[in-house]
Amino acid sequence: MAKTNKIYDTKLMELKELVRKIEYLKYTLNSLVYWDKITNMPEKGLEYRSQVMAYLSGELYKLFSDKKLRSCVSFFEGRKDNEKYVDSMVKRIKRNYSYVSSIPVKEYTQYITLIANAERQWEEAKRAKDFNKFAPYLEKIVDSFKAFAEYWGYEENPYDALIGYYEEGVTVKQIDSLAEELKLFVIELLSKIKGSGIYIEDNLFDIYIEKEQQKRLSEELLKNIGFDFSAGRLDEGMHPTTLASSPNDVRIITTYNDNDIRVGLFNTLHEGGKGIYEQTINSDLMGTMLAEVSSFGLEEGQARIYENIIGRSKGFWTSFYKTLQEICPQMSELSEDKFFRGINKVQPSLIRNDADELTYILHIIIRYEIEKDLINNKIKVSELPRVWNDKYKEYLGVEPKGDDEGVLQDIHWAAGYFGYFPSYFLANLTSAQFVAAMERQIGSVNELLSEGKLDLIHKWMADNVHSHGAIYSPTELIEKATGEKLESKYFVNYLQNKYFEVYQLNKN
Amino acid sequence: MAKTNKIYDTKLMELKELVRKIEYLKYTLNSLVYWDKITNMPEKGLEYRSQVMAYLSGELYKLFSDKKLRSCVSFFEGRKDNEKYVDSMVKRIKRNYSYVSSIPVKEYTQYITLIANAERQWEEAKRAKDFNKFAPYLEKIVDSFKAFAEYWGYEENPYDALIGYYEEGVTVKQIDSLAEELKLFVIELLSKIKGSGIYIEDNLFDIYIEKEQQKRLSEELLKNIGFDFSAGRLDEGMHPTTLASSPNDVRIITTYNDNDIRVGLFNTLHEGGKGIYEQTINSDLMGTMLAEVSSFGLEEGQARIYENIIGRSKGFWTSFYKTLQEICPQMSELSEDKFFRGINKVQPSLIRNDADELTYILHIIIRYEIEKDLINNKIKVSELPRVWNDKYKEYLGVEPKGDDEGVLQDIHWAAGYFGYFPSYFLANLTSAQFVAAMERQIGSVNELLSEGKLDLIHKWMADNVHSHGAIYSPTELIEKATGEKLESKYFVNYLQNKYFEVYQLNKN
Repeated sequence: MAKTNKIYDTKLMELKELVRKIEYLKYTLNSLVYWDKITNMPEKGLEYRSQVMAYLSGELYKLFSDKKLRSCVSFFEGRKDNEKYVDSMVKRIKRNYSYVSSIPVKEYTQYITLIANAERQWEEAKRAKDFNKFAPYLEKIVDSFKAFAEYWGYEENPYDALIGYYEEGVTVKQIDSLAEELKLFVIELLSKIKGSGIYIEDNLFDIYIEKEQQKRLSEELLKNIGFDFSAGRLDEGMHPTTLASSPNDVRIITTYNDNDIRVGLFNTLHEGGKGIYEQTINSDLMGTMLAEVSSFGLEEGQARIYENIIGRSKGFWTSFYKTLQEICPQMSELSEDKFFRGINKVQPSLIRNDADELTYILHIIIRYEIEKDLINNKIKVSELPRVWNDKYKEYLGVEPKGDDEGVLQDIHWAAGYFGYFPSYFLANLTSAQFVAAMERQIGSVNELLSEGKLDLIHKWMADNVHSHGAIYSPTELIEKATGEKLESKYFVNYLQNKYFEVYQLNKN
Repeated sequence: MAKTNKIYDTKLMELKELVRKIEYLKYTLNSLVYWDKITNMPEKGLEYRSQVMAYLSGELYKLFSDKKLRSCVSFFEGRKDNEKYVDSMVKRIKRNYSYVSSIPVKEYTQYITLIANAERQWEEAKRAKDFNKFAPYLEKIVDSFKAFAEYWGYEENPYDALIGYYEEGVTVKQIDSLAEELKLFVIELLSKIKGSGIYIEDNLFDIYIEKEQQKRLSEELLKNIGFDFSAGRLDEGMHPTTLASSPNDVRIITTYNDNDIRVGLFNTLHEGGKGIYEQTINSDLMGTMLAEVSSFGLEEGQARIYENIIGRSKGFWTSFYKTLQEICPQMSELSEDKFFRGINKVQPSLIRNDADELTYILHIIIRYEIEKDLINNKIKVSELPRVWNDKYKEYLGVEPKGDDEGVLQDIHWAAGYFGYFPSYFLANLTSAQFVAAMERQIGSVNELLSEGKLDLIHKWMADNVHSHGAIYSPTELIEKATGEKLESKYFVNYLQNKYFEVYQLNKN
């Protein structure tokens, strides 16, 4: 940071002061006021809380619209003498305001109203199992996003603009080639598993475990993977999520199911992966807008490492299963081996949220293919239920009985999350690619795990991923940490090894 | 609100819009961000949280300094055609900014720095049991408040300015006459109690009660007195307090002692009294700055009604003791009568926070007398330990061994709470005066309680006190609800009845 240009230094200080305030407000709103809303707020508090949140959002919007901020951003944009972090900072600030501000106000307001009504309409349609009740709203939403894609801009495919909102620099072209290969592989692997004749029982898990035991277990799991409770919390909520006010205040929300220990276990491990990412971001980045995760997809990738690659491995349970049985004596009859197979059972099903690790990727690919085709006018909204059901039958061999367990199952489209599913796709691929890079440097993860050396894994991720916060875009960070562009081969390889073991398949 | 003056209406709307924003920020800061800090925040979150709170305070200060707000306030000030609530609103807004803004910025900044250091110094002095380590700081604090009194203004006594900061319209003249009478009465009653020869055992309460039981008990207590859990919460913290974001989101914090059930019981009842006050404020007052308690003293008065007049009455336990024993079977050996006497035991002691209901008032009077004399230059800071110890000996018959259990016991002076103790005084008097007025209308509280008719008590308080929020100043509200100015006779009468019964004294 040894700039000698005085104007440059002054401008940089000015920019950082503006960013500080934005951060204070943004994290208060998103990570504290919102966190409280979903954990602690009494029900009658909702109306006033909504007003408060609308007010704070408005204030935040004002800060982003501040002329001083815009002029600072222009000053640094495109300069050759910026340090990397200044470039990243400026880019990230722009990303925070340009998506909204590039849409004409009137159109944006109409869209917000549309979404508010669409969510309610989606709920009603889902309850009635009738896509037609939701279709007129979805049509308008799709039209909105087609328009947004034009405002936001793209090089090849309008859907690129929507993906880019979540994952800077990721394109249809890139995903298409990776997804096609992966899809064929998973479908073939599924058929091998079916052909194996092995059926894994999972009524093994029909054991009542008290909430207090599950909480204790989740705490132990988080401590075990390196989550720092002096800089974070674990709470229960309706939906699992992780929210950070700063790397020193990271809050995990998990859910439990009294009659299936796996729900709490894997939700906690999933959110725990995000939690340690948030906690390990270099806190010197506070005040630069870069003390955040690089992207939603990269954070989700870390979640999948802890939920799946670590959390469903033999090595992890070799070292942790005793603790689980100590906390939950009800599980003492269940052998470690049966437990391991039970948490890795493959069973094609209709609902993405309940899918196993292997078939999950097909659910994501289906949504990706459909969104892409909708935005590119290749299918119409009215055709969606048929297209959806055909794909489920073709890829997964299952067929929804009603739209509620088919095309209406996810809230995402009603809530305007177009371009969001590719992040889940990215997450799966990066989880395996990061781990493969790590293994080249520090050896087999499974061995490290069975020796309880989670700290070495954490350290590698900290050095190569977490600590950098949002200095690098997801595509930059993947290349920097793994030496390659995004690949599907590592994930394919990982799945192959995992399921060949679980289902005792022959390599040829 | 049937004004026909168009400018008037426009101005009023403008004022209300400004007040809305102030409320959003003020309650977010004071009742949510602060609440989270003392209940949920992980320890490493402190540094960043302090920055966020400083930022939000600064923004709040800006809103209060807004020229538009000041000009609206001037527009309405002193007009004859205002409705009552408009007068109150304007007065309350001014109270929110004029105390700070009437002090020259430089002096105020010095004072803030002084306080920050004084608190640390007080802690150290208390640990060392050495008043001299704290004296130089206290001298500066007293000087600051002498100066503040001049800035804030007063008619007769400079200490009036400090009392008025907490209790609008309350003066030394008024308190002096009430305090003197009360002091003599309590001292005489104490000597009668000593002379009664009755000694109440209280090792009865040396019973281990688990945290979970105590929590359940506190919840039942709060439900019983009418606290609405769909518009509030109960949590545990270091210090009992109650914080409200709106009448629909009121959060009680209590403390427990595993080995003395009384700590949790009476902290919860005390805070519960505040909690139902906050919940019962007319929510139509939101957006006028008047959906708040009238004053700190009046809220404390409600707390004392529920903690003492209700919570230590025979009638209350006649209806509730069975519930207590159900939740805490460990208490099944202790008879209701012994329990009743145990919670009403009188025992002069050194520490205000641990004092019984009767001697508590003497602790408050001692602080009041000392503060008043300090501000009026009748005693010097250096004389404080001697003055303190003399008064404790004279009024309570006890003598501190060290300054830690004497003049250094409370943080208040170090934290700049000068003029605050009179609110405690007011609280005791109003608690009895309100209840007496209620009894004239709906009959004996003790009978209502033993019949479990707490809802009638709540309704009277709601109609006559709670619902009005801050429309009326404390002195106005006392007169409106009871038909009289503040009196000490009701509190005297209440204490007499209580202790004559507990200690079986003869009326003459």
